[in-house]
Amino acid sequence: MKIRVGFGFDVHKLVEGRELWLGGIRIDHVMGLLGHSDADVLIHAICDAMLGAANMRDIGYHFPDTSADTLNIDSKILLRKTNGLISAKGYRIGNIDATVCAERPKINPHVPAMKACLADILQTDEDNISIKATTTEKLGFTGREEGISAYATVLIEKG
Amino acid sequence: MKIRVGFGFDVHKLVEGRELWLGGIRIDHVMGLLGHSDADVLIHAICDAMLGAANMRDIGYHFPDTSADTLNIDSKILLRKTNGLISAKGYRIGNIDATVCAERPKINPHVPAMKACLADILQTDEDNISIKATTTEKLGFTGREEGISAYATVLIEKG
Amino acid sequence: MKIRVGFGFDVHKLVEGRELWLGGIRIDHVMGLLGHSDADVLIHAICDAMLGAANMRDIGYHFPDTSADTLNIDSKILLRKTNGLISAKGYRIGNIDATVCAERPKINPHVPAMKACLADILQTDEDNISIKATTTEKLGFTGREEGISAYATVLIEKG
Ligand SMILES: [Zn+2]
Ligand SMILES: [Zn+2]
Ligand SMILES: [Zn+2]
Repeated sequence: MKIRVGFGFDVHKLVEGRELWLGGIRIDHVMGLLGHSDADVLIHAICDAMLGAANMRDIGYHFPDTSADTLNIDSKILLRKTNGLISAKGYRIGNIDATVCAERPKINPHVPAMKACLADILQTDEDNISIKATTTEKLGFTGREEGISAYATVLIEKG
Repeated sequence: MKIRVGFGFDVHKLVEGRELWLGGIRIDHVMGLLGHSDADVLIHAICDAMLGAANMRDIGYHFPDTSADTLNIDSKILLRKTNGLISAKGYRIGNIDATVCAERPKINPHVPAMKACLADILQTDEDNISIKATTTEKLGFTGREEGISAYATVLIEKG
Repeated sequence: MKIRVGFGFDVHKLVEGRELWLGGIRIDHVMGLLGHSDADVLIHAICDAMLGAANMRDIGYHFPDTSADTLNIDSKILLRKTNGLISAKGYRIGNIDATVCAERPKINPHVPAMKACLADILQTDEDNISIKATTTEKLGFTGREEGISAYATVLIEKG
């Protein structure tokens, strides 16, 4: 069996007047993330980690933010397509471990729903999808609530 | 053998009047890290990577910073408990690679002592614990010495 | 076969009057990265991930930025030496996945040339070297174009 690792990092700006989507679910909050798509920073970091592990470029390469096709798109569609891309190259998810950095809102209560959502899209066991949350203790742009960042590491397998 | 990967990221604020604990050892410095526990940012990132790899939530879930039990606690105790949690699920450490981002103080002279300390707690060979240090070239909150951040990646094995 | 993972993170300041080197190639830009070497932040993150995976300290330990030997050095030389270090311990590259965070210039057009360059130095297949690019949406020091950061994750194998 061949094993490979990947890593993704993504950032989006927090603004008023947008919905907040994280890990495929909508979270009630006074601000939302700005982007060409729904700006689901957690799904984007996971897509990038999957594409990187499979050596298939990155999310901006496959789903350009200049395309009318991806305007306001639900990032769950991008995740499903990303899974199709790596599957076509013979890879399957081993496990995913992702981290959201946000001062607010509280992410932890939503983790079980996110895991269920992502496992369903990726057609893998929920035990293969870990989502964690942390703050940056009011430091930096995430600490000042100017944006939210996400990291993801992934192990993929073939054969 | 089943292999999984995890990733942890943590940040704590630098303040006067606190001791600086990193990788389980006390380092002489004009400032220390602020936190509910001893704020050992390096151990916290490692715990989060281990929990994420095993899909057992995160450090805030198991050791809430609102609990009297963890007030000023030595993070080495949290690391030992974290190792117990993943062991109970059948996992053992393959290897850990962690990075501390701090403008000051110099971390490198302390790396051998940190490795020995963490290997002893995790009951693994020192060759399985890597600790690295970098600065952010005076940029960002770590560069301005407002805080210290740490990244950790971990590989765990079962069977 | 023994498998290990590593993670590297590096930052350099953007200044006028320096060439911009990333992933071993020169990119036309109004600014370049400041450093003791050529400041190729992407290669440095990869070197650190390789050294961390093999538990052989970090790039600052092997190639100190106080040494006359490394002044203005081409980071490709450091990468070749790093590969020699891990090879001497019996390790070979499984795969590398790296991410450059820069608001400008556009990195993606240069990715194929970077991959070819790094694969040649590391004597591995180009399919084992993934390079991705992202912005931080004008947030933080990379967003303000004060610097460029890079992350790398690597899997190494032995036996
Ligand atoms: Zn995004
Ligand atoms: Zn912490
Ligand atoms: Zn560097």
